[in-house]
Formats: sequence, C-alpha cells, structure tokens
Amino acid sequence: MFAESTYTQRRQELKKAVGNGILLFLGNDESGCNYADNTYDFRQDSTFLYYFGLPYAGLSAIIDIDNDREIIFGDELTIDDIVWMGSQPTLHEKAAKAGIKDVRPAAEIEKYISAAVAKSVPVHYLPTYRAEHQLKLLHLLGIKPGTETPSIPFIRAVVNQRNHKSAEEIAEIERACNVTADMHMTAMRVLRPGMRECEISAALEAVAQAAGCRLSFPTIATINGQTLHNHYHGNICQPGQMLLVDAGAETEMGYAGDMSSTICVDKTFTPRQKSIYDIQVASHLAAVGALKPGVPFKDVYELSCRVVCEGLKNLGIMKGDPTDAVEAGAHAMFYPCGLGHMMGLDVHDMENLGEVWVGYDGQPKSTQFGRKSLRLARPLEPGFVHTIEPGIYFIPELIDLWRGQKKFTDFINYDEVEKWKDFSGIRNEEDYLITETGARRLGKKIPLTTEEVEALR
Amino acid sequence: MFAESTYTQRRQELKKAVGNGILLFLGNDESGCNYADNTYDFRQDSTFLYYFGLPYAGLSAIIDIDNDREIIFGDELTIDDIVWMGSQPTLHEKAAKAGIKDVRPAAEIEKYISAAVAKSVPVHYLPTYRAEHQLKLLHLLGIKPGTETPSIPFIRAVVNQRNHKSAEEIAEIERACNVTADMHMTAMRVLRPGMRECEISAALEAVAQAAGCRLSFPTIATINGQTLHNHYHGNICQPGQMLLVDAGAETEMGYAGDMSSTICVDKTFTPRQKSIYDIQVASHLAAVGALKPGVPFKDVYELSCRVVCEGLKNLGIMKGDPTDAVEAGAHAMFYPCGLGHMMGLDVHDMENLGEVWVGYDGQPKSTQFGRKSLRLARPLEPGFVHTIEPGIYFIPELIDLWRGQKKFTDFINYDEVEKWKDFSGIRNEEDYLITETGARRLGKKIPLTTEEVEALR
Repeated sequence: MFAESTYTQRRQELKKAVGNGILLFLGNDESGCNYADNTYDFRQDSTFLYYFGLPYAGLSAIIDIDNDREIIFGDELTIDDIVWMGSQPTLHEKAAKAGIKDVRPAAEIEKYISAAVAKSVPVHYLPTYRAEHQLKLLHLLGIKPGTETPSIPFIRAVVNQRNHKSAEEIAEIERACNVTADMHMTAMRVLRPGMRECEISAALEAVAQAAGCRLSFPTIATINGQTLHNHYHGNICQPGQMLLVDAGAETEMGYAGDMSSTICVDKTFTPRQKSIYDIQVASHLAAVGALKPGVPFKDVYELSCRVVCEGLKNLGIMKGDPTDAVEAGAHAMFYPCGLGHMMGLDVHDMENLGEVWVGYDGQPKSTQFGRKSLRLARPLEPGFVHTIEPGIYFIPELIDLWRGQKKFTDFINYDEVEKWKDFSGIRNEEDYLITETGARRLGKKIPLTTEEVEALR
Repeated sequence: MFAESTYTQRRQELKKAVGNGILLFLGNDESGCNYADNTYDFRQDSTFLYYFGLPYAGLSAIIDIDNDREIIFGDELTIDDIVWMGSQPTLHEKAAKAGIKDVRPAAEIEKYISAAVAKSVPVHYLPTYRAEHQLKLLHLLGIKPGTETPSIPFIRAVVNQRNHKSAEEIAEIERACNVTADMHMTAMRVLRPGMRECEISAALEAVAQAAGCRLSFPTIATINGQTLHNHYHGNICQPGQMLLVDAGAETEMGYAGDMSSTICVDKTFTPRQKSIYDIQVASHLAAVGALKPGVPFKDVYELSCRVVCEGLKNLGIMKGDPTDAVEAGAHAMFYPCGLGHMMGLDVHDMENLGEVWVGYDGQPKSTQFGRKSLRLARPLEPGFVHTIEPGIYFIPELIDLWRGQKKFTDFINYDEVEKWKDFSGIRNEEDYLITETGARRLGKKIPLTTEEVEALR
C-alpha cells in the first residue's frame, strides 16, 4: 500500500468532484472456478484499490459526502478462518492504513443504503463487471435487472483522477514494466524450434511469479500471431515461424505492465518476415515520435495506420493513396486493432468504466471496423500512461470475406495478398508515460528491431 | 475429449437414474477479473464437461427426458470473434463430438424452460457456485433469490456416476498425477535457503504449464505450514525451516492431481523435525494400508488420528488413551482437517454438489471441530479416487485459545505444547484408486519419508 495520506487525499478530491450523495464501492469477492472454494487468484476491484488500498475479499465501502463519513463494511476473521488462512491484522488495523476509522460489519451496508434510498439521497455507483456485483446492487437498491443506472458524475470523477498517474504510481508501473521486460527477454532467450508454445509461456510466467508479481492479463504466446487474442498454447514452434508474445506482469499493489514482441523461431528472421516486421517498427517509431501533450491520440493512430499502408504499398500488397486508404478503413484488413490503451491499475485501465469516458472523454467512438477498436483517442495529457502497439496481421478468414465482398479493391491488391495469407502476424508493444514536454518509455528497453531480437537469439 | 460414445452413454445412464422431467446444465461463462474482458483462465463446469465434454464458454444444455431430447444452446462465432480469437470448428461440429445433433441459439433456452414451467414439467437443476449461474437460474425460472431448490434426485444421480471412475478417466487422472509428481520433485530439487516461496511456486507451476496442464487449485508453498490454506508466497525460506507444498496439475480435459510434500530447507531434516515428520508418515502409511472396498473411510480417518495421538503421546505432547482422545476430538488441536477427499474432474470432486452426497451418501456430518472437516466418510467402493493427506500442525492461535479455555486437559500437555508452538506443520499427500481388492497409488511415487526427501535434496 501507499501511505495513508495518498488514499485520504484521493477520497478528498473525489468528494469535491462529485459534490453530494453517497458513493458506493463494491469490493470483489473470492471467485469460484469449478466450485465455490476452489477460487481463482483473488483480485480486488481496481477502483476499490485506488481509494481504499485493501486487497482483501468481502469488503464494501461508502463515502457519504453530505455527512462526511467514510466507512468500510466487512467482517473480522473467526478462529476457523485463522486455522485455514493464518493470523492477520484485524480489519480495523488494515482499514486504518487507508485512513479509515469507521469499520462496520458487512451486513450493515444494507441498512445504510436503505436509509439513504428512503430519504432520496442519491446513491452513486459504477458499472458492474461481475455477476456478484450485479446481484448485490439489485439487492441493496431493491431494483430489477436491467434497470441499473451507473452514475456518470461518479464515473467521470474516477476516470479523471485515475487517468493522471502520480509519481508514486509511475514508479510502481515502472516496476511492473521492468518485470514485464524480463518476461519478454526470457522468451527470446529460451525459444528454440520444436518447443511447444506452452513451454515458452511457462518460462515467462515463472519470471513474473518469481518476482512476486501476478500476470496483468492472460498470456498470448502463439505461432498464430494473426489471431489477436489467442490463448491456445499447444502448438509446436517450427523453423521458419515466428512466435508472437503479448504478456505482462502486475505488481502486488495491482499496477500493470503490458508488452508484446514477435520472435523468430530460428536464430534470424527470413527476408520475407523482415519486410513486414520493418513496417511494424516504422509505424511503431512514428507513433512514439508523435507523442506529446495536446496531441490527440487518434491522430497518432491515423499516422501509424498511414505508415503501415505506405509500407504495404511498397510491397505491392496495397495500392492508391495511403491517406485515402486509412480514411476509408482499408488498412483495417491488416491492422484491425487500435494503437494503444491506457494502463494503470488495470492493463486496459478502467475498461469497466467505459472506454468512451477513459479514452474519448465522452466523445463518440467510430463504428468503422478497425477504427472502432481504438481504445484511446483523446488529446494526451501529462501523467497519462498508455501502450503503443501497432500490428500487421494476415487473417485468412478476413481476407476471404472481404475479397468475396469486393471490399476496398481500390486499395488492396487481393492477388498479392493471397501470397501472404500464411504469414501470421507481427506486433511489438511498449509502454509510455506522457510528460510535460513529450513522452518517456517505461521500463527496461526490450529488443524492438529484427537486429535487436536476433542479437538476443 | 473422450469418444462420442462415452458422453452418449453417460447421458443415457443419467436419464435412467432421474427418470423424468428436464435436466438443466448451466455451462460456465468467461469470468472477468478486474473488468469483463480481462478474464480468468476459462474453466468449464465439471458436470457440463462430464456429460457434454465441450470446454467452451457461453453454453447451456438440457436433457428433456420425457421427450427424449438432448439440446446444446449456444451461439456460433462472428467474424469479429474469429479476428480476435481465431478460426474454430462450428458449434454444430463441436457438439457432434459429444453426440449432440440438436444445437440452438443461446437465447432459445429461455423459451424452452418457460414452456416446461408452464406445463408443470419438473426442471431439475444443480446447486450454483457462481453468481452468473444464480442470475441465470432466477431469470430462467422466474424465481426470487433464496428460493432456489436444487434437485436431490439429479444431484444423487450425478454423484453416483461421477464417483465411480471409468478406466479412461483413471488413465487421465494418472496423467494429472504424473505431472503433479514432477511439480513436487522439481520443488524438492530447486529449494535452497534464501529463496522466496514464490520462486519455488513459480518453478513448480512452470512444470505443469510446460506439460500443457493448468493448476487444479491455487498452489500452497509456505514456510508457515501450520496455516492449512496459505496462498501467500512472499517469505524467504530460512535454514532450519520446512517448506510445505500442496499443489496439483489438471489435464486439458479437466482431470486433477493433488499431492503435498514437506521439504527441509536445509539438505536434511533436524531430529526435532524428523520426530513429527515420522508420525505423519506412520499415520499416512496406516491409512493407506487400510484402504479397500467396504471399509468406511471414516474408520480410516479415525485410525490415522489414533496413530497421530500415539506418536504425540510418545513425545509427551499428548497423554491419556489415544482412542479416547480421538473420540473426544482432542487430536484436532494438531490435526484439524480431514484425511482426504474424492478427486476427479474437481480436485475436491463435486464439492459444489454437496459433500454430504459425495462423501457421506446423504448421512449427516459431524459438527465437531476437526471431524467436521472430513470430506469423505462413506464405505469405499471400487472406482473411487481420493487423496490421503493426514497432517500435523502447531497453530499458535488455536493453542492459545484452547489453553485459555482449558480444553482437553486430560489429553493435551499444554506446557509441552508450548515448546512446539513455532514448529509449523507437516503434510504429505498422495492419490489413491480403490480397486476390487484394495487400493493403488496413482502417478509416480514422490518422496514420502525424510530419507527419501533428503536423497533428492
């Protein structure tokens, strides 16, 4: 945990921003995998962590702005709990570390909320992402499924605070990034032809775990890099292939790192692989060079798309004017994802609160295929932390679909594309902090160019 | 997956056993960790796996006994799904592998169940262990939280089938046990003074993952072995301490292994450690020796408790008649857990269906501290697979509590116990199959005695 004052100040700011009513925070419960007591690794809700810091299951909290009360609701351990889970400080002691003196039994939140509802005091709550939260909300508020109305002022206030990382948060994120970099460099060192994908993911996840971290998201380690979120790890890595790794560590406090790399299974890349890889790097570096406060991230995305189109045009895969191609959305055949996303206590920071608030400041998102997957578009501000991860993918199903639909025939040379259909995909990803004057890469540098990767192989 | 006929036959038997009505199977959904799309490793519901074999999220199924229909409800992939998650066989193709031809859109289950409810056809369902299931049930049946009534005939039929492992299931469990054994032997090989617990857990979990397995439960790797389910891995392993490891692999098909070992941080155990360790081994071997069809596992547990009491009496920690001590429950000061549990598609097999059915065949469980934690008590039958894991623990909080309450002063020498308060705990665990004539250990043998452990160190 950070110092008590960090949490007290965060809550103070939040109260000012929302102004009145009750703010409801539902902490996470243990989450059963195949039965209630075989639990997934417990992860506290990130907003709960941000304002209260306590990484324990079974807690909720309220901030009663009008009456200036801050209360944590939860139960103390029984002797049975201690036998099975060990001795711990009391909940009162834990809460004190977050500057909270008022601790009440878990069940009492119901009475508190009912009383507020009866007096028509506004109860602000956030969107839910676990069924357990939905059940609790329905019960606490006495409402029906589908009638939940998360509080926009609460969401906006939280987003505004959490989007701007403090120095102590940046230090913690950088710790996550350093472990993340070690995970990727381990993958680069151990990968050999004939290994199964799961052997690589095992090796890199062990790096995170041995450093006392958990994973910030499920690892991607695949020879089918064209599949963007592929969690199957059963294939053998064959000579002539590439392994796309997207993996990150999360520190004990909950801050994430997130990097990607694309590694040749052989000692070196083939000229064919290098020709696409170099375009990804050019797009990546162009994007990084454009980062500074005031620049809309959407513009950086558009730039990265144009660089991809220019490169593919040089290879004869695309044609026409790259700017027109990107505007029309033709680039999305090869680059169907966004350029990056906010990162903090969540690897896609605050995705549960809505990308339209986090990455778009309430402005509408595009509905165009490819462009709709851009999670961050707003003008950059000092303190923002986000990823840079353009990609180039050859997705056979998408190629067949669009070819059949005769889509973007002015920009795509389908006959040439056919020759690349088995190429798979390339993505490299780094994490950046927006500073007062530009941007700074977070964490150790991992190999980016083909030469850098080959040097480590 | 097993052959289609396995699933068809299992459903056939189930239909016969329940007799009439509709059997409802709620498959698991993806489970969000800190936001909806940052999912925990997907795990299908074990009963769904048992009867339908499909390890995919978002499915439900019904068996309509009266109309002899078997239907899987789920949606086919969209092109967006394929871009992000890769090409896959269609749901129809997948379902065919489980012998199901009738596949309908996910939403249609609602109509089917409503029609049945309207006609007063009994809809049998199992207890829920995920909030998502509870929400679905409430919605499908139009009932209020707290009014759910899981079907006892359905539970008993499922338990009766799943408790008796077939030859192909045993082969799969043995695969899990072999990987589990490798995990433990890796821990024994890599542990050195000065390492953090998480370095050991990282190394042994990597063994499971590299073998294409997942974990069957969260790893315990702790120098505080007296805490039975301790998932904290941040301590340094110091000379003179022991590391208690409880960890297991689960195969891709979902079958579990589960073993424990207690490893000296130094090359050898101290005489003091050995004196308690040898009692655990004696209790362990006595229990194993008693395993055969017809013997109530409760009796095996009682035997293992008596051996522990006899050993502790020889050390002066306990006194009086061991049989009386066990009957009174005094042993539970040092052995507050059960002797073992069923194991199969769940590491605590079918714990979600109720231990009283799985391990007690509907007979009541003891409420006595210690004895109430015995998960398996019923007479053993060929095909049962279960663990053997007696333990000896010195739990300071429990010692202080009972001493203050003057509990069992006829059986416990509290002055002597004080000298052992910092001992921590010892548990060794193996997995057994009940055969026609006795029992067989599943998986490679891992070191059990101190000599065997020391030989590997």
